Amino acid sequence: MTDSVFTRRYEALRRMVDRRLATLVRRGEPADLRAACRYVLSGGGKRIRAVLVLLSCEASGGKVQKALNAAAAVEVLHNFTLVHDDVMDNSLTRRGKPTVHVTWDLNTAIITGDILLGVGYRTLLREGTRHTDRLVRLFTEALLDVCEGQALDLAFERRTDVTVSEYFRMIEKKTAALLSAAAEIGALLGGGSPQVQAALRRYGHSLGRAFQLQDDLLDVVADPKGLGKPIGGDIVEGKKTFLLLRAVSRAQGEDRDLLQRLVKAGPDALHVLIPENSGDNDKSRRHALIRLVTAVYTRYGILDETREEIRRNTRNALRALDVLRPRPSREMLSQLAEMLVNRAS
Amino acid sequence: MTDSVFTRRYEALRRMVDRRLATLVRRGEPADLRAACRYVLSGGGKRIRAVLVLLSCEASGGKVQKALNAAAAVEVLHNFTLVHDDVMDNSLTRRGKPTVHVTWDLNTAIITGDILLGVGYRTLLREGTRHTDRLVRLFTEALLDVCEGQALDLAFERRTDVTVSEYFRMIEKKTAALLSAAAEIGALLGGGSPQVQAALRRYGHSLGRAFQLQDDLLDVVADPKGLGKPIGGDIVEGKKTFLLLRAVSRAQGEDRDLLQRLVKAGPDALHVLIPENSGDNDKSRRHALIRLVTAVYTRYGILDETREEIRRNTRNALRALDVLRPRPSREMLSQLAEMLVNRAS
Repeated sequence: MTDSVFTRRYEALRRMVDRRLATLVRRGEPADLRAACRYVLSGGGKRIRAVLVLLSCEASGGKVQKALNAAAAVEVLHNFTLVHDDVMDNSLTRRGKPTVHVTWDLNTAIITGDILLGVGYRTLLREGTRHTDRLVRLFTEALLDVCEGQALDLAFERRTDVTVSEYFRMIEKKTAALLSAAAEIGALLGGGSPQVQAALRRYGHSLGRAFQLQDDLLDVVADPKGLGKPIGGDIVEGKKTFLLLRAVSRAQGEDRDLLQRLVKAGPDALHVLIPENSGDNDKSRRHALIRLVTAVYTRYGILDETREEIRRNTRNALRALDVLRPRPSREMLSQLAEMLVNRAS
Repeated sequence: MTDSVFTRRYEALRRMVDRRLATLVRRGEPADLRAACRYVLSGGGKRIRAVLVLLSCEASGGKVQKALNAAAAVEVLHNFTLVHDDVMDNSLTRRGKPTVHVTWDLNTAIITGDILLGVGYRTLLREGTRHTDRLVRLFTEALLDVCEGQALDLAFERRTDVTVSEYFRMIEKKTAALLSAAAEIGALLGGGSPQVQAALRRYGHSLGRAFQLQDDLLDVVADPKGLGKPIGGDIVEGKKTFLLLRAVSRAQGEDRDLLQRLVKAGPDALHVLIPENSGDNDKSRRHALIRLVTAVYTRYGILDETREEIRRNTRNALRALDVLRPRPSREMLSQLAEMLVNRAS
């Protein structure tokens, strides 16, 4: 499958999802709550989770139309988490637009998230299927995992002894759980056998791990224009990424000291490591810290190690697809995995 | 049925619900999130919504055990709304204990609410029933209504032209929707006919209206010791209760001016109506405002009018029970309605 065939098909599915999302918030009051819900759902993005539902359905032998409501529901669930996470992380922009709590206020953001979750379940229930029970169960377990993952991520901020294996447990909940649920839901609705369902679940799981690792890597190596946010944000916030945790365990001497201070400072990293009395402005202090830490990462081969870890997870994802019958949609899933880990932003 | 028989049976059901609630949050991490969820679910309360599920199940011909998970799920959903509402209303205590965002912090409160909602769905799915689809649908529509009701309530704070009929639409969503869903869910699980399900839904709806009106009334006439919060809180916050909205439309001259200023000031009522330079302290300024407004309510017969409106809704609730077969549980539902509107706190 050529790249342009992949891209055309992906875009067709993405537009299908966007059109369905646009129909979901017709009802509901008051008006500004409806406006906030629409603002979130029309915010664009790659719609990876929804497309994953659709492709998994097709790769399991079903028609994508059979899974379109479930695909939209999964995407709504994802957007619910974004709205609440942005409050908790105090993020000011999302996909280049001000976040809900910035555009409206805290209360609107809390309740918009809550409403979106209800809209997600309502949309899921629109799938006329005899598998409702299982469908709602998968959706609910993914919801719980994503919330727990976010809570672990927040708890990591205050901890100084986070291990790499704890990191993986966190991203498996925060990121991989919804991708694996999306793939399994698609397989279920597509009429896939239990073996096919399990395979697609594994695919989503590995893809999710690779996806989050790539996110961590891009914070350091991305093209800043495409990223939609300043580069090095994780470093400046002392975030316990795979890069930082691996580097802490590999670095020696002064390098190790620097990283341990970074881990300890967490969100206060900039303040603690590059004191304000250095005479520089905020921007150049940020750059100084990012340069320092990136140099350590490079010195100990952390970037290459991360790339290798991403490749390993991508290979696992691709291998999981082996049990599926060869179909264009299986090929699409392969290329989706490649796309996610080769993205430059 | 004597009062003591009613009370004994009610308490037995309430304890049954409490025991089930105590088992729901065994899993999950991190530990302090689990602790916050347990803190909320062990906070006591009358468990009216859960008991309503159980009694409706029995009054429809089923055994209460068949609805115990659904009863717990409805109670968890209610507690989810309390945690988020307390953030949005900036409430410092709930049932005499500090709220979640006070005991922990804002982020913990947001995510605890989110997790509870997931726990609610998970618990609902434990009902082994062929009605899962309908059950999840009722639960989800109630969730959406409750959120919209809360959003309307918040929007009312900033509005000066709220009508009594808008007030009723708000409380029907914020309060009555979950009570009617609880009754209908119980009827569904108890094997009630569509007629019985509709009757119990109507019962819950009228009960919910009466319950909220009673809440509004108690703010003015309750025994302060039993209320668990200072009396007159709604007045001091300029809340658009049934009492205030009816009084605005009945009062004349100076009385009307006072109430209109109260409506306009909303949450700033105390500051605007009893200026700080009056020389009094905060407590006596509160009392002054409460005395003023209560006097107007009394002058125009608003308290009696509210009592009559409560009786009217209670009669509707009781009348809805007529189609049910005479059973002790039907009698319990009658007495439940009487209990809720005769409570002094």
